[in-house]
Amino acid sequence: MKKDHPLTLRSAHACFGGAQRYYEHASSTIGLPMRFSVYLPPTAVAAQAHKVPALVYLAGLTCTEETFMTKAGAQRLASQLGLALIAPDTSPRGAGIEGEADNWDFGVGAGFYLDATQAPWSRHWRMESYLIDELLPLLGQYLPIDTTRLGLCGHSMGGHGALTLALRHPGVFASLSAFAPISHPSQCPWGRNAFQRYLGDDPVRWAMHDATLLMRQQERAPYPAGILVDQGLADQFLHDNQLQPDALEAACAAASQPLTLRRHAGYDHGYYFIQTFMDDHLRHHARQVGA
Amino acid sequence: MKKDHPLTLRSAHACFGGAQRYYEHASSTIGLPMRFSVYLPPTAVAAQAHKVPALVYLAGLTCTEETFMTKAGAQRLASQLGLALIAPDTSPRGAGIEGEADNWDFGVGAGFYLDATQAPWSRHWRMESYLIDELLPLLGQYLPIDTTRLGLCGHSMGGHGALTLALRHPGVFASLSAFAPISHPSQCPWGRNAFQRYLGDDPVRWAMHDATLLMRQQERAPYPAGILVDQGLADQFLHDNQLQPDALEAACAAASQPLTLRRHAGYDHGYYFIQTFMDDHLRHHARQVGA
Repeated sequence: MKKDHPLTLRSAHACFGGAQRYYEHASSTIGLPMRFSVYLPPTAVAAQAHKVPALVYLAGLTCTEETFMTKAGAQRLASQLGLALIAPDTSPRGAGIEGEADNWDFGVGAGFYLDATQAPWSRHWRMESYLIDELLPLLGQYLPIDTTRLGLCGHSMGGHGALTLALRHPGVFASLSAFAPISHPSQCPWGRNAFQRYLGDDPVRWAMHDATLLMRQQERAPYPAGILVDQGLADQFLHDNQLQPDALEAACAAASQPLTLRRHAGYDHGYYFIQTFMDDHLRHHARQVGA
Repeated sequence: MKKDHPLTLRSAHACFGGAQRYYEHASSTIGLPMRFSVYLPPTAVAAQAHKVPALVYLAGLTCTEETFMTKAGAQRLASQLGLALIAPDTSPRGAGIEGEADNWDFGVGAGFYLDATQAPWSRHWRMESYLIDELLPLLGQYLPIDTTRLGLCGHSMGGHGALTLALRHPGVFASLSAFAPISHPSQCPWGRNAFQRYLGDDPVRWAMHDATLLMRQQERAPYPAGILVDQGLADQFLHDNQLQPDALEAACAAASQPLTLRRHAGYDHGYYFIQTFMDDHLRHHARQVGA
């Protein structure tokens, strides 16, 4: 690595012929060190390596950059498909804001993939700008990743992140999917609490980060090849009204956005559900990013 | 469940069409509550369910009954093969012995799959009797598992456990494999420390729990269809002399025991290594247990 390489490699592990790596870097956007993980398939680490397309995965409440890589079982097929996997952390850490880790659904581990506008959060909680304007360019510059061929996926809070970032930044991501996303955060308890504290009381700001409301505003289908969403029907948070896939489905229909929303009897909200359907998501993205 | 059902279901999750379950029960052998996990494939939980063969997996130092089920990525293929997966915990917990959790390589999380003979450990640390005489019969009685068709696999300390239990209890297991096993514990730091404290100073007792020494005593191959062992060559514990696969290899050769010992350049000791080669182990066992 060059002397001024901005990425510090924390650990590396051979995995399915490729490389599972954990990085840390000083984020100028966040103003703190940030961590992320990368799985590089064999084609990206071989002697004659070339840049590969990647799936960016946004995790849910309480998760870190490690959760997806240890629990989703995605590396096996990603290795075969020649698809890299990227998993950022879910919030700033170490800011020292009073009460930042008091609740599992707000603050640390709960960045909601937006830029906070309200003190004291607005200084560091800038996950949207961090991901789009800092992390993605770093990946393209310092890792063998073709950032013109990115898919975006997420789970729960990260499903909200995937849907909203993909709609707010057209052209950045070629494909989109989610597991049990928070689809209508301005109308659910998790989202209302987070939006009120991160964004204040203005409903216009809330609407800018609500996938259902963003989709309703689309004049044409933003992802004409289709969005894939999986939802377990034994998911406690579905029953607690946190997820609201029906609202997303109606908004997609209104925008003529093709949506494959699969409802799975018996499956809950966790990674046993995610790993069961992960291969379908990997193939969905691989087709659209040309892996 | 019957009123006097001895297994308490702690959690259950749909996974690849089957069921991932976590159980606790009062162990009469250990004298404490013990936990284990089970993955049941679709054929074992369907309306017309029948008993299925199973792979018992013994985890390594510091692990619990959860480690294998969350990190090894085994459920996908086990579901297809119709093979159940069983993962016991790695030691008694909650005994309250002074210093029991002071070291990560001894005591809690480090039962070494033997019956301790030395006080204060001999009262609760009886993992061999627990597994063979209590847990396996419980599985056959209360779960849809055919205990006449069991494979045994383990990792590191659990690889030691798999090799020694399979050699000490002929006829109990139909197939055997290991990842990076502690192959010659009487001659490595982890094993010598544990054996001295659990078994005392008598080298005869140590030899009864050393896979290499047990294999040398075999008059004919105990597993004629072959033992599968995978070892990463970037494994720090290989270089620290904790694992000694060469000793096992020589002992198998002396006993005419077929051994497929695969050495993998670049792979380390962790679950990224295990998941890479897990499918090969599942197929190895499925062939021999008739899954």
